Amino acid sequence: MDIPLDFLFNPKSVAIIGVSSEPTKLGTVIFNNMLSAGYEGKLYPVNPKYQDIHGHKCYPTVSEIEGEVDLACIVVPRQFVVDVVTDVGKKGVKGAIIITAGFAETGEEGIKLEKEILEEAKKYNVRILGPNCLGEIIPNSKINLSFAATNAIAGDIAFLSQSGAFCTAVLDMSLETNLGFSHLLSIGNKSDIDENDLVKSWLEDSNVKVIGAYLEDVKAGRDLGEIYRQAGVNKPLIIFKPGESAESRNAISSHTGSLAGAFEAFETAMNQSGISVAKDVDHMFNLLMSYSWSKLPEGNRIAIITNAGGPGVIATDFIIKNNLKLAALSEQTKVTLKSKLPFNASVVNPVDVIGDADVERYKNALEIVSEDTNVDVVIVILTPQLITDVQETADVVINHIKVSNKPIIPIFLGGQYVSLAMKRFYENKVPAFRDISSAIESIASMHRYNQHLKFKDTLEEHKETVVSEYLNQGKYINEVKALLSSDIKALPEDLVMKLAQEVNIDLPKQVVVSNIDEAILFAHDKYPVVLKATTEGIVHKTEKKALYLNIEDEATLRSSYSELESMLRSENAGSTNILVQEQIKVSEEIFIGAARDGGSHVYEEGNKGFGHLLAFGKGGIYTEVYKDIEYSLVPSTKLNISDALSKTKIFEIINGARGKEKLALGALIDTILAVQKLVLLYPCIESLDINPLMLTEDRAVTVDLKIFIKE
Amino acid sequence: MDIPLDFLFNPKSVAIIGVSSEPTKLGTVIFNNMLSAGYEGKLYPVNPKYQDIHGHKCYPTVSEIEGEVDLACIVVPRQFVVDVVTDVGKKGVKGAIIITAGFAETGEEGIKLEKEILEEAKKYNVRILGPNCLGEIIPNSKINLSFAATNAIAGDIAFLSQSGAFCTAVLDMSLETNLGFSHLLSIGNKSDIDENDLVKSWLEDSNVKVIGAYLEDVKAGRDLGEIYRQAGVNKPLIIFKPGESAESRNAISSHTGSLAGAFEAFETAMNQSGISVAKDVDHMFNLLMSYSWSKLPEGNRIAIITNAGGPGVIATDFIIKNNLKLAALSEQTKVTLKSKLPFNASVVNPVDVIGDADVERYKNALEIVSEDTNVDVVIVILTPQLITDVQETADVVINHIKVSNKPIIPIFLGGQYVSLAMKRFYENKVPAFRDISSAIESIASMHRYNQHLKFKDTLEEHKETVVSEYLNQGKYINEVKALLSSDIKALPEDLVMKLAQEVNIDLPKQVVVSNIDEAILFAHDKYPVVLKATTEGIVHKTEKKALYLNIEDEATLRSSYSELESMLRSENAGSTNILVQEQIKVSEEIFIGAARDGGSHVYEEGNKGFGHLLAFGKGGIYTEVYKDIEYSLVPSTKLNISDALSKTKIFEIINGARGKEKLALGALIDTILAVQKLVLLYPCIESLDINPLMLTEDRAVTVDLKIFIKE
Repeated sequence: MDIPLDFLFNPKSVAIIGVSSEPTKLGTVIFNNMLSAGYEGKLYPVNPKYQDIHGHKCYPTVSEIEGEVDLACIVVPRQFVVDVVTDVGKKGVKGAIIITAGFAETGEEGIKLEKEILEEAKKYNVRILGPNCLGEIIPNSKINLSFAATNAIAGDIAFLSQSGAFCTAVLDMSLETNLGFSHLLSIGNKSDIDENDLVKSWLEDSNVKVIGAYLEDVKAGRDLGEIYRQAGVNKPLIIFKPGESAESRNAISSHTGSLAGAFEAFETAMNQSGISVAKDVDHMFNLLMSYSWSKLPEGNRIAIITNAGGPGVIATDFIIKNNLKLAALSEQTKVTLKSKLPFNASVVNPVDVIGDADVERYKNALEIVSEDTNVDVVIVILTPQLITDVQETADVVINHIKVSNKPIIPIFLGGQYVSLAMKRFYENKVPAFRDISSAIESIASMHRYNQHLKFKDTLEEHKETVVSEYLNQGKYINEVKALLSSDIKALPEDLVMKLAQEVNIDLPKQVVVSNIDEAILFAHDKYPVVLKATTEGIVHKTEKKALYLNIEDEATLRSSYSELESMLRSENAGSTNILVQEQIKVSEEIFIGAARDGGSHVYEEGNKGFGHLLAFGKGGIYTEVYKDIEYSLVPSTKLNISDALSKTKIFEIINGARGKEKLALGALIDTILAVQKLVLLYPCIESLDINPLMLTEDRAVTVDLKIFIKE
Repeated sequence: MDIPLDFLFNPKSVAIIGVSSEPTKLGTVIFNNMLSAGYEGKLYPVNPKYQDIHGHKCYPTVSEIEGEVDLACIVVPRQFVVDVVTDVGKKGVKGAIIITAGFAETGEEGIKLEKEILEEAKKYNVRILGPNCLGEIIPNSKINLSFAATNAIAGDIAFLSQSGAFCTAVLDMSLETNLGFSHLLSIGNKSDIDENDLVKSWLEDSNVKVIGAYLEDVKAGRDLGEIYRQAGVNKPLIIFKPGESAESRNAISSHTGSLAGAFEAFETAMNQSGISVAKDVDHMFNLLMSYSWSKLPEGNRIAIITNAGGPGVIATDFIIKNNLKLAALSEQTKVTLKSKLPFNASVVNPVDVIGDADVERYKNALEIVSEDTNVDVVIVILTPQLITDVQETADVVINHIKVSNKPIIPIFLGGQYVSLAMKRFYENKVPAFRDISSAIESIASMHRYNQHLKFKDTLEEHKETVVSEYLNQGKYINEVKALLSSDIKALPEDLVMKLAQEVNIDLPKQVVVSNIDEAILFAHDKYPVVLKATTEGIVHKTEKKALYLNIEDEATLRSSYSELESMLRSENAGSTNILVQEQIKVSEEIFIGAARDGGSHVYEEGNKGFGHLLAFGKGGIYTEVYKDIEYSLVPSTKLNISDALSKTKIFEIINGARGKEKLALGALIDTILAVQKLVLLYPCIESLDINPLMLTEDRAVTVDLKIFIKE
């Protein structure tokens, strides 16, 4: 199998440029790391100052090396990097890791330098990892081309980090828990090779079981989701990305913007693709460990075995909080437990084997409970009591895991005394925990992932919207594009109406009239009606008396019409045309919005951003108060949307709470799908707000729609 | 100073009843633990089987001991415990720790036995700790009367646990972090000495700096809050109590009940008294460590010093999430930092000292940043980079903490490599963390506690409601009590009205009439009005056409009246009297409720429960949807209530969101205070719902009020 980044992960020969005689210099550290990793290919130190170094022949330049070179590792001062890249290119080297810092991360001059390097590399088809990175560790290839203080343990986790520091912290954590990596890469400024290249490669690599990534920004977010979805393999991908609270979200303009920041777009995109989002460092590490070492739970029914009541109750709280269930043990299980446990033990879940439980009692309980078909996961809690043999109990758990087909997760509470048991667990590759909440969060994450695997195929079958079919195909695309600039701009009302009609958004019946007779003709079978000024520039209609509500009969229509008309005259409005509209009765007010993450070309490959995030939930005056909004990313299927919608709190009312009539859910979903179609027909739509949409038992009427465009 | 539980914490002589020759028996373990703790008082083993044991003279009974005995520790089989207690009583011993299990926790027979023991103990004025407990460790008194596997380190934390297992887990954790205890007690079934006795004693004990408690149930909750408040000392109390998700809350009857379970009552009571509630084991442990070792933060402005960008961003996220602030460093600080740090370092908060930071650079940054008057807390983040000397950096932090008057909290990310630094921190009593979220949660908790200390005095000044002044003083108390039974019962509508008027709850103007003329007379200046049937038994008025809304004029009043009257006749209702009421215009719908935790005597000392929990927030159809409800416990001051109210989301609208008029907040608070008065005048009120209350710009009108009573 040809892995596209083979030159990076499995090079037959490596040149390190910038090795010196000083032992603390980074080049030397990397050279020594490579030697102690036991690299079996050809290793060439390069430095024009030396002929020999650390007992190896040293080359003045890469091009002067006799044999082929697959990979170069560049550790020279930044002003020399361009020349080295040229030399590397001329030699025909396939890739270069640039450790050196001082480029795009430091400002303008650095950005310029980095650009030069990239141009040079492209000229010779050299792929670049970095610059400004820690390097890479590939235990299976016996490669440690990094300046990390230690090597990594070999395993099946592929991990990439946009921060070198984060990489070393994870590495240090992994040594303590014996967690192994297939790849550990620091991608630095990711000027060329980025998370998408690596994830794509690792999804195809059968030696990789779990992929983890620490990202500070996402390069081409839509592509990442697509890569993961299209690979179609069952390989968990866990991403940790801080910046949730960043001020950046304040920079977004529209109403939708303030609700849907970049973090929501990221999170929605990840969830929709089945990628797990970790919420902090520990959480990410625990997930890497759990996915690497544990079986996946088949369901959400958790059994607890404990030698103390309190921790059982605590675990129950966290199980409920994480949307898991306390398993209901079968009668048979209870009878068998009763026969094996002392009289005062509890044989309902949580199973309490009592403080004086010895190894045998834990063993019996574990065997019986894990056999129960009502149980998907078994948690084994231990507190170090006088009689407890912590280490032997650990061995019982370890041995049982080897023969069981269910995840068995030990939680040993304590410090010094249980640390020896933890060591035993880690040596045997058992994901074990010292705190209850972390353990249960990890189980919940694995359960969600497994749910996603089951849901995935259903989703693929329901794939309705093919982006390319709609992209820029709007009837009025030229008219809209003519208005486009680099500033955010609101579309004029008449164009908004045309767009809404194009995608069949249900609008109040209305007509623009120039005299009272036309108004009366339109209104006669539609009372109550509303009168509105149509003139541009009068944005907040109520403030200027340009809006008349609740017109119940012809007399009121006449008087309101004449008042509005005189106002328009006295204001010297460009036109005295007036909009007559059926008044929609107040019902459940719903909000629908769309906000684009990225530019107007976001749907074309390689562009930054996730595309349009659809947002929907409670509208009206409570929109901002309750922020009862859920998200779905374009392209979404009907299933995605109804799934997200069912997570809003207002769904309870839409669905007919407490004996009330159900509202027109189907019409609401159709409107959201229409909005999705609209932003694809016109990807230059930067944001869009429907607020309110009036949802009755039979209609979903869009009362107010605003559309903003931007390049 | 006479500490009431001195016989328990500082006994001059101790008898252990049930010491045997077998080394693994609990009595022997405790005896040996006491010896190795270096107890300096007189220690008497008691067992009729032996004359000598482990080289000590053994006594057949306690009464045969020559000298005085302050404390007995009973470890005999359960059937012998009563007799031993009698013997202990006769000897004049002040207290007994009963280790033996098999009492109230095992069912009926055990409950009976435990009762017998207590009766016997009371006869002789012997105080009891336990039964069914691990015992106690009092390091300062060199006492280890427990069967824990190890002794505790001496310190200033007093900790009690309702679970022996939890106690051993905390003990094991404390050994790893070098955390010291003044007291470590397992209270078992707390048949006599309970959390309130211990907390009261520890609040007075100057050797105790922090109090921690693990509770599975709270014995007399109102008293606990009172004890803590009345002590008036600045001593943090942290309680961890699982059971948040217990099914118990489903057992509660009324509307309020489903929103306010026992856990909310507990949490509100704790918060209102300034007691911290921990959310899991680790959280509790971290708080004990932080309060014991750290200074309290004066404010919420946090500065971060880090050698890596990523973790700085992560920390920022958690700071915002925990309602803390990123400190804005002064210009002077930035200038000084610039002069001491390399060009590419960041001198705005988070201060990034860059990956190659050595000890000196950390030292400089720490000195400069902690001097800044805009900074209340400094977090020092380290990731183990090649150049980093982890342990020396730890020493820099430790030394700076000794001279700084601000909390300095280190977070060292990693595993194996940083564990040595952690050890150094713990040896020097520095609260240090290996994960970012835990550190920041601890800081946030300390900040909240300090805020409470400042708020406390203001609260005491505003103490308006003295419970005893109102208790059972309602005008209609006899009438209400006559209806009382052990079942929940709704008060009849006329009595509800009388009670509401007694406390000046603003109700719609109304009158009960027996003919149409009276109705017309009342309604003439109040249209629109509402007609309602008054007959009992017609509960859901709309379903039976017993409610007529929107009556705008006399003609409609006449026709509706006659329809309603005939319906009542045809239904053979007891009376054809009809209620005419002004119709309150639809405005912001508010919910107010009260639910009693405990029985109708909960306000008398020593009773179980927290009293009435007031609940308020969004009403109408969104009450259950958004559960936008905050709580306040009776007795609450105006300040308590307005503080809680300001935490609801609907407060934004009450307070005049986006240029809208403010609603009648004062009238709303008065109504909540009226409800508080009502439940004190009638403590037999089990629950009460106002839903909705219509809140306009000038009124808070109670449209629907239901009151339920129970013994």
